[in-house]
Amino acid sequence: MQQLLDTAEKIRTMEIRGAGRIAEAASAALRDYVLNIKVTNIKDFNKKVDEAASILIQTRPTAVSLPNAVQLTKRHTATEVSEAREEILRNADKFLEQAGQALKKMGEIGAKRIRDGDVIMTHCNSHAALSVITTAFKQGKDISVIATESRPRRQGLITIKELNDHGIPTTLIVDSAVRYCMKDVDTVIVGADAITINGALVNKVGTSQLALAANEARKNLLCVAETFKFSPKTIHGDLIEIEERSPEEVIDTEVLAGMPNVKVKNPAFDITPAEYIDMIITEVGAFPPQMAYTIIKEHLGWEFTKMG
Amino acid sequence: MQQLLDTAEKIRTMEIRGAGRIAEAASAALRDYVLNIKVTNIKDFNKKVDEAASILIQTRPTAVSLPNAVQLTKRHTATEVSEAREEILRNADKFLEQAGQALKKMGEIGAKRIRDGDVIMTHCNSHAALSVITTAFKQGKDISVIATESRPRRQGLITIKELNDHGIPTTLIVDSAVRYCMKDVDTVIVGADAITINGALVNKVGTSQLALAANEARKNLLCVAETFKFSPKTIHGDLIEIEERSPEEVIDTEVLAGMPNVKVKNPAFDITPAEYIDMIITEVGAFPPQMAYTIIKEHLGWEFTKMG
Amino acid sequence: MQQLLDTAEKIRTMEIRGAGRIAEAASAALRDYVLNIKVTNIKDFNKKVDEAASILIQTRPTAVSLPNAVQLTKRHTATEVSEAREEILRNADKFLEQAGQALKKMGEIGAKRIRDGDVIMTHCNSHAALSVITTAFKQGKDISVIATESRPRRQGLITIKELNDHGIPTTLIVDSAVRYCMKDVDTVIVGADAITINGALVNKVGTSQLALAANEARKNLLCVAETFKFSPKTIHGDLIEIEERSPEEVIDTEVLAGMPNVKVKNPAFDITPAEYIDMIITEVGAFPPQMAYTIIKEHLGWEFTKMG
Amino acid sequence: MQQLLDTAEKIRTMEIRGAGRIAEAASAALRDYVLNIKVTNIKDFNKKVDEAASILIQTRPTAVSLPNAVQLTKRHTATEVSEAREEILRNADKFLEQAGQALKKMGEIGAKRIRDGDVIMTHCNSHAALSVITTAFKQGKDISVIATESRPRRQGLITIKELNDHGIPTTLIVDSAVRYCMKDVDTVIVGADAITINGALVNKVGTSQLALAANEARKNLLCVAETFKFSPKTIHGDLIEIEERSPEEVIDTEVLAGMPNVKVKNPAFDITPAEYIDMIITEVGAFPPQMAYTIIKEHLGWEFTKMG
Amino acid sequence: MQQLLDTAEKIRTMEIRGAGRIAEAASAALRDYVLNIKVTNIKDFNKKVDEAASILIQTRPTAVSLPNAVQLTKRHTATEVSEAREEILRNADKFLEQAGQALKKMGEIGAKRIRDGDVIMTHCNSHAALSVITTAFKQGKDISVIATESRPRRQGLITIKELNDHGIPTTLIVDSAVRYCMKDVDTVIVGADAITINGALVNKVGTSQLALAANEARKNLLCVAETFKFSPKTIHGDLIEIEERSPEEVIDTEVLAGMPNVKVKNPAFDITPAEYIDMIITEVGAFPPQMAYTIIKEHLGWEFTKMG
Amino acid sequence: MQQLLDTAEKIRTMEIRGAGRIAEAASAALRDYVLNIKVTNIKDFNKKVDEAASILIQTRPTAVSLPNAVQLTKRHTATEVSEAREEILRNADKFLEQAGQALKKMGEIGAKRIRDGDVIMTHCNSHAALSVITTAFKQGKDISVIATESRPRRQGLITIKELNDHGIPTTLIVDSAVRYCMKDVDTVIVGADAITINGALVNKVGTSQLALAANEARKNLLCVAETFKFSPKTIHGDLIEIEERSPEEVIDTEVLAGMPNVKVKNPAFDITPAEYIDMIITEVGAFPPQMAYTIIKEHLGWEFTKMG
Repeated sequence: MQQLLDTAEKIRTMEIRGAGRIAEAASAALRDYVLNIKVTNIKDFNKKVDEAASILIQTRPTAVSLPNAVQLTKRHTATEVSEAREEILRNADKFLEQAGQALKKMGEIGAKRIRDGDVIMTHCNSHAALSVITTAFKQGKDISVIATESRPRRQGLITIKELNDHGIPTTLIVDSAVRYCMKDVDTVIVGADAITINGALVNKVGTSQLALAANEARKNLLCVAETFKFSPKTIHGDLIEIEERSPEEVIDTEVLAGMPNVKVKNPAFDITPAEYIDMIITEVGAFPPQMAYTIIKEHLGWEFTKMG
Repeated sequence: MQQLLDTAEKIRTMEIRGAGRIAEAASAALRDYVLNIKVTNIKDFNKKVDEAASILIQTRPTAVSLPNAVQLTKRHTATEVSEAREEILRNADKFLEQAGQALKKMGEIGAKRIRDGDVIMTHCNSHAALSVITTAFKQGKDISVIATESRPRRQGLITIKELNDHGIPTTLIVDSAVRYCMKDVDTVIVGADAITINGALVNKVGTSQLALAANEARKNLLCVAETFKFSPKTIHGDLIEIEERSPEEVIDTEVLAGMPNVKVKNPAFDITPAEYIDMIITEVGAFPPQMAYTIIKEHLGWEFTKMG
Repeated sequence: MQQLLDTAEKIRTMEIRGAGRIAEAASAALRDYVLNIKVTNIKDFNKKVDEAASILIQTRPTAVSLPNAVQLTKRHTATEVSEAREEILRNADKFLEQAGQALKKMGEIGAKRIRDGDVIMTHCNSHAALSVITTAFKQGKDISVIATESRPRRQGLITIKELNDHGIPTTLIVDSAVRYCMKDVDTVIVGADAITINGALVNKVGTSQLALAANEARKNLLCVAETFKFSPKTIHGDLIEIEERSPEEVIDTEVLAGMPNVKVKNPAFDITPAEYIDMIITEVGAFPPQMAYTIIKEHLGWEFTKMG
Repeated sequence: MQQLLDTAEKIRTMEIRGAGRIAEAASAALRDYVLNIKVTNIKDFNKKVDEAASILIQTRPTAVSLPNAVQLTKRHTATEVSEAREEILRNADKFLEQAGQALKKMGEIGAKRIRDGDVIMTHCNSHAALSVITTAFKQGKDISVIATESRPRRQGLITIKELNDHGIPTTLIVDSAVRYCMKDVDTVIVGADAITINGALVNKVGTSQLALAANEARKNLLCVAETFKFSPKTIHGDLIEIEERSPEEVIDTEVLAGMPNVKVKNPAFDITPAEYIDMIITEVGAFPPQMAYTIIKEHLGWEFTKMG
Repeated sequence: MQQLLDTAEKIRTMEIRGAGRIAEAASAALRDYVLNIKVTNIKDFNKKVDEAASILIQTRPTAVSLPNAVQLTKRHTATEVSEAREEILRNADKFLEQAGQALKKMGEIGAKRIRDGDVIMTHCNSHAALSVITTAFKQGKDISVIATESRPRRQGLITIKELNDHGIPTTLIVDSAVRYCMKDVDTVIVGADAITINGALVNKVGTSQLALAANEARKNLLCVAETFKFSPKTIHGDLIEIEERSPEEVIDTEVLAGMPNVKVKNPAFDITPAEYIDMIITEVGAFPPQMAYTIIKEHLGWEFTKMG
Repeated sequence: MQQLLDTAEKIRTMEIRGAGRIAEAASAALRDYVLNIKVTNIKDFNKKVDEAASILIQTRPTAVSLPNAVQLTKRHTATEVSEAREEILRNADKFLEQAGQALKKMGEIGAKRIRDGDVIMTHCNSHAALSVITTAFKQGKDISVIATESRPRRQGLITIKELNDHGIPTTLIVDSAVRYCMKDVDTVIVGADAITINGALVNKVGTSQLALAANEARKNLLCVAETFKFSPKTIHGDLIEIEERSPEEVIDTEVLAGMPNVKVKNPAFDITPAEYIDMIITEVGAFPPQMAYTIIKEHLGWEFTKMG
């Protein structure tokens, strides 16, 4: 149990971060924990598994990849502990293997949508989006990238570093210059923190502005997201909470303290409606956003869609 | 002449800055220079005035308020030097007086468009926009403001300081959060660097994103601009050049130097089409943007609209 | 059979009305009739069931919930009468139980989409929409409602009475004031008479104007509809007929008689396209309207989607 | 003075009503009053005229035609009473003559936009709109009209009566059926209570829904309005107040009293943005709505557009 | 094999053409070839089948109906040659029978969407679209058709001949007159060369202009397409190549040779986005375009949707 | 008079054609006729001038440039024949000189809107549009052109020949390929047959499709038109008639004769709404289309805007 608590703590403190890595860590932690459960009664076993799952899920309650990973790992139909344990181990191995291959597969699928000479705009720092871009570049396509700074944490600086290391010609812009530069863009490519039942995209704040400007200029927007980024609970009407982060990411705390009439609003994410998304690239194929229910049912499992 | 050269230098080095203040300084400098012209022949006089005007105009070739101020000051129909000088002095005095009153008048006109309880979004740091907001607040209207950071130079920090000093409740957001916060906004109010013959607004980069998001959500956008912000030369087809500024405003120069595949694009302004602008508030009234030609003709003078 | 004929008559004369209640009455009537069929040959049995089904369906040919209820009740795969009867009884019980719970479930799902402080607009008098609103209110959310009068029959007066009885702050408006009031609305919630294969909503005339105005102002529109409101026959290209009702609902008959050049057009329903609908809340979850085919297939049964 | 007070009272109590008739009555009352002013000092004369004008204007402060009529009548440049009186008499005669001919001229101009076979939709009861329709019909064009009921006061019943008397085939619909019937419409024709500096139309509540539905279906909307319906004060930023009328127009007072949680919102007008208006037909020509400033300046007079 | 090579050659040289006929010919050729394969080892058998399939598919690499027909025909799960052969024969017979009935079924489904009095616009020469039109006409509906010329090959002339032979009133227009005539149209009906995973339609160049103009005027656009027109490989991100045809279809070669600075761009197809398509009429029902994945999975088979 | 009748005949038979050349020929013919009028009484003189004007105007009743040229030439305020004659001669000379310089001036103004590297799309064969394109090319800008074929008369072939002769890289496309190619276009440039009071453009059929596709893709559309292309009579509500031309331009007459159910609709022009036009380039400046009234009043003369 201590190991699982350690992992939970690392996720909570963001020592482990990134939707994909969090999912993998949680699945592995649950697998390792299950290996060491000593009880022999299936009811007791299930109870212990549920407790462990609950600890993991509560570390970052708004991250969709985390509960999805845990649910995909812990589900079983066995009536004996040994069988249940084996099923969970198989689940974990399967999840970890698929997650490991997803980036590569999404890169291959997405790269087909990029043509020689394309100018791509991206926002923040998404491994999934970068997988598509670098795959296309490695295929010999003559592409270039416009990357936003992504205030307040400026993850765009990580993105331009990675693109530079790949040798991809890159232009850095401030977030306010998105619409000004859209004329020169061929395709916008972004990642995802969550995708809802009606195909809306929850992603780094500012994404919806890229999408709006791309839509105005009739440029395609591709969202790159593993199937475990889709949110089953939105089928039941649940809203995805938008995390509000600390003011100090935006302005020096002392400066702010000197202005009693001023406060800071610092949402970490925003929501892009389905109508601004051309396609969602997953590891199992490219889909229009309206297909979210079908993806959840086929790839996260039917029980995910049941009322509870 | 030395005094005029000094003023020109201060405009060039941005010691004097802000479209309104530049215009006033140039008009005053030309007036003072004309007082000291010694020639008695009207042809010589005109030549000297034109030279001085040219020096002033070339300091910031893209600022519309500057050539407008100089043209409004130097025009005369006299055939004798003494009359010409007097006409120019009268022009300068009139321009300076009107410019001095414009902020107040725009504040009064614009404040009528603000209702009790309104939430206003503004961008960058515009004296004209702030005049409307503070006038409404002084009238006792219970308003609040959402102000953008306005990267790269973060003039939003000046704006929130001014609003704080007035006691107006203010929320600071990063530029990427504009669309996320638009739901709560009643009216967007921005200034102007230039307005073209077809009612397009040239203003601080990012303005067109506020306008796009406001239009999507059917929120009104008011542009507040003195009549001398309208660009007569756009009648003749001229495009307004968008100034590109230094990369170091966006990223540390050394960091950039370490990434040979990365460059920075740093446009200072962008262009908002007329269809996203509800009204332009000037010191002589509120107009739809399509009226730019009429405003130029009536308030900058007919000769401004002639070819050649 | 007499009992079934009685029910059919009550549906025809609108003594039993409301899409949900009609469906329940028809399913129950068919169940009771099946209990009393005396034949022992399965072919004769099926023929009698089909005749009874046909009588019920023809009472209100345009109501989708009616044929859906009858089909869901009468289908069986048995080859012997006793088995067939039992299957039909089970079908009826299942349908009646699900229909009974649907209002509550839709209320729970839909209420999650309502936030504290929301202003909701609704049209006509929909039990499904009211279930969402009252559930949210009972959860302690501080909400208020704008209800349209819904000419010609003014069912809005029933709606405001129900809302008043729940203690929910309510504002009554005429149908023409929908767009004027939309600025203050957070979410529009309406019921459904039928939903087509491409996600279009057939509902009380005027619904499409609420939807159009909501879409213009970027406000969400939720449609609340049991799965048996979806129309399987639209898969085969069938159009849903729009009932035209009597002029006397709109104008005094005698007054009309005095104006020979004037006639009245009084459509009972109109059609809202899928693009104006954010989500359809059913008793099995919330879906984008494009998912109609999947909902029909999963919840009304595969044979509903077959040709012929 | 008593006569003028009588007229003022009749306007206030709506014994005299309709924007055109109010304007004519006020101009005539002022003319008659001026005839009887006994003072010989021009300053005293002007003061008395201003007082009388003020009494008339305050009867219905939101009606634009009223202050326009009064201003057009009372303005003069004379320095002697006799000249001033004559100028005012000429103004009144000119205004009354022009107002008298405006309906006919607007009918002629507007009728040119109607083609044989057209189906026209109109809202409420506008003399100006009906002048266009009946003129086209009298020219032998085979047209028909769809008229809305126009709740709460149901002025549509007056409209269908007038159309019936002209022998024009007419269809009455409830206000909720506007979008449903728009498919069959060729042109929407409405009147105006006021037109603002940016071409927005203030008219009977529901007009903006006709306009929205017409715009969605790409049908033309013509607004028919005398030049004195344009609002000069909107140049100075003033908003046009929307009159809220009594609940009893919408619901029986006793019924309402029984529902303590229910109130009524009953706006008399709404606002249609310029982008939904194809043309404004005035007595001096057809114009796009953006030309409001030019119309005010040319036909209401330059001083109407001055600040202060 | 010779017979199969003959068929392949006829497809390549367009002796056999039209998406449906190509599909049928390929399926039949493969069936006939399989009848004559002499090998007894299943591995050898499969290899030969794959070789033959490959020859057929490569004749027109961009035609979606061709690989779909070949895949649907050749797939089998047998481990013995005789069983495999029988399964392929059954596949071929089933495909040919379904293809043969598809036109009729699409005609029946689509005709339900046509109302008495409708004016239909169509483009190029689509058997599927014409099946809908002629079916509706044979049902006694009083319809008429506007047919485009469809430069450069002017297939519209074939269309008007067929419509004339059916006795259907038809109007021929040039392609540039589409928007001008759209006001009079009730429904646009077109065929399909391919439909992608996100519901985009690849069809004769110009189709997207009809769709754009129909969407602007809020007229419905129906696409009529057999299920084998849907492209499974677009699930994997593949783009559909747009064939560029010879300049001589557009301009006389000698004339072109005299103008060294002029070249010709002659795309055979263009792409209509899903948002401009009301419904896709297939032989198994009418669907919104977003359902492409479900149609592929249910009617072309699950393996079509797998990666790799 | 014979000379004037000759000119009239040449215009009628299209020996003289093109809106600009027709205008110039008519003005010159009227001038020459006036030189030879023998009457000495001003009333008789005016009557003869009016008769001659009427003959010229009736040759092509829908061409706006023709009545404009005649009105601008014949108007005078003289009371004596000699003065009247001189005034008309001056009018003619002024008109002919201005018309002669307009192409060059429009070229200079419009060329400023073209940037190095731009791809321009044009339709039909407009001297005004070509003046802009060739001026920009002569300024050394590296531009290329996409020219439509412009069925049925294929004037695009004249356009590509002229562009080829200037050495401008040009691509010919069929009219159906406009939307497909729009992605690569920077600016659409077209001429005008007439411009209405609300800024709508009457031009070669197909223009509105270029405009619609440009608007969808957010590309600018410039209309290049002399001031005498603006239609004063549209101020009075008049519609501009769209000329329907002979079927034989579209299809071989014999082929058509063999198809009794087929007819041809061959409109020569279509109408582009103001909202799809970025700017109108005239010889006196660039204007938004809503400024049509101001252009007519300032450049065709105030009396053109009067009623009656």
